[in-house]
Amino acid sequence: MCQLLGMNANTPTDVMFSFTGFATRAEEYKDGFGIAFFEGAGVRLMVDAQSARESPVAEMVRRFPIRSENIIAHIRKATQGQVTLANTHPFVRELWGRYWVFAHNGDLKGFAPRLHGAFRPVGETDSERAFCWLMQELAKAHATVPPIAELTATLRELAPIPAAHGTFNFMLSNGQALWAHCSTHLHHLVRQHPFTRASLQDDDVTVDFAEHTSARDRVAVIVTEPLTRDEAWTAFAPGELRVFVDGTPQPV
Amino acid sequence: MCQLLGMNANTPTDVMFSFTGFATRAEEYKDGFGIAFFEGAGVRLMVDAQSARESPVAEMVRRFPIRSENIIAHIRKATQGQVTLANTHPFVRELWGRYWVFAHNGDLKGFAPRLHGAFRPVGETDSERAFCWLMQELAKAHATVPPIAELTATLRELAPIPAAHGTFNFMLSNGQALWAHCSTHLHHLVRQHPFTRASLQDDDVTVDFAEHTSARDRVAVIVTEPLTRDEAWTAFAPGELRVFVDGTPQPV
Repeated sequence: MCQLLGMNANTPTDVMFSFTGFATRAEEYKDGFGIAFFEGAGVRLMVDAQSARESPVAEMVRRFPIRSENIIAHIRKATQGQVTLANTHPFVRELWGRYWVFAHNGDLKGFAPRLHGAFRPVGETDSERAFCWLMQELAKAHATVPPIAELTATLRELAPIPAAHGTFNFMLSNGQALWAHCSTHLHHLVRQHPFTRASLQDDDVTVDFAEHTSARDRVAVIVTEPLTRDEAWTAFAPGELRVFVDGTPQPV
Repeated sequence: MCQLLGMNANTPTDVMFSFTGFATRAEEYKDGFGIAFFEGAGVRLMVDAQSARESPVAEMVRRFPIRSENIIAHIRKATQGQVTLANTHPFVRELWGRYWVFAHNGDLKGFAPRLHGAFRPVGETDSERAFCWLMQELAKAHATVPPIAELTATLRELAPIPAAHGTFNFMLSNGQALWAHCSTHLHHLVRQHPFTRASLQDDDVTVDFAEHTSARDRVAVIVTEPLTRDEAWTAFAPGELRVFVDGTPQPV
């Protein structure tokens, strides 16, 4: 089992605060971590098979304010597949001339779909296999990148298929939107004007977002377990798939 | 125009020394840099649209000894495409369940092949377009990952096609081998027992490789222009494609 962190914002935003709290959990989730930042259509992927507590790569993420509109991070406790870089989430593939980033929390038993298309796993995880299958099925369903609402409809049809094999909490982004699917544990909130102070659940850190934001800024944060003590997190329902655009959860 | 650096070794080796010299050249080649490290089948890609002289990501590469058997690095001076992350080399795609890393130095005019397959460029560079075309043609030529000698034969047939449109110095690796093709400028050497001292061409740094190596180690370094003053670099011939495995240039 692992933990997921996603961010979708209407303006490039850093995740130093949220990632600091998230990485603190890496004592338990010690088998690697990864974080992907979209910058326009490009993506910056930082992964390490070390714990996010000790990795020099994680240290850099905590120290440098890399700003992005779509971020997906993952800390790993290996259940399937060895502790290697090839098995470290998030995974990235290209489809329709866009990069797609995927990270998964949970365990799928016996999900072995036929992968006849252009997407093959490099590592041995159930997660990367499920991602390749999702990409293959998206490529079959649409000839080119469709509107976000159509993609969401397709993902709502697809997600239950792997989910029937176990736990399939996942996040997916193509830099335009962030999709989050819940089997068991996933929470979200939107930070927007008027901004307040928030204190990390796992660490003695408080931030006053009002000092770091403008009135226009809007940031959705999606995470396995709530990161802060003093904000109102909304739990996903089991089986729920939500899409976030410009920091806003889209109507279901 | 840009500069390329590649390393292929028989044991995981860091490139702190070579990258230090290489990054010094980033005053001129200021429109981004990138470096990809294979770790087994996995790949760690670090890219920045800033100059390698100033980028915090480049600073990390200089300071942390990330060890790898196959490394490709690139510093960019934009000729086609904006200075964005999506246009920053190296590029990565998956084929046959392996990651492929590609970086290009040169300029291709009017190379606009039909990309009907599973590989589409995300950015706007001639380089990524040529890489997608190479991947598409490799996928057509072989059903699965073939022996290195067969891949080399296919690449020897393919490389002249984009090269006819301009300058096509490139490096390609799948983590098993490193291919380097020269249109104009490319040099290589092999560092092996007995190791000696070497001094960087661009910087006041000397390293005694004997202190950092064992007698078994063998490292091939491939670069646009020689990095050191006191080693014997071999220039590629125009049109030459070479493949390096375990630190050894393979017989042509």
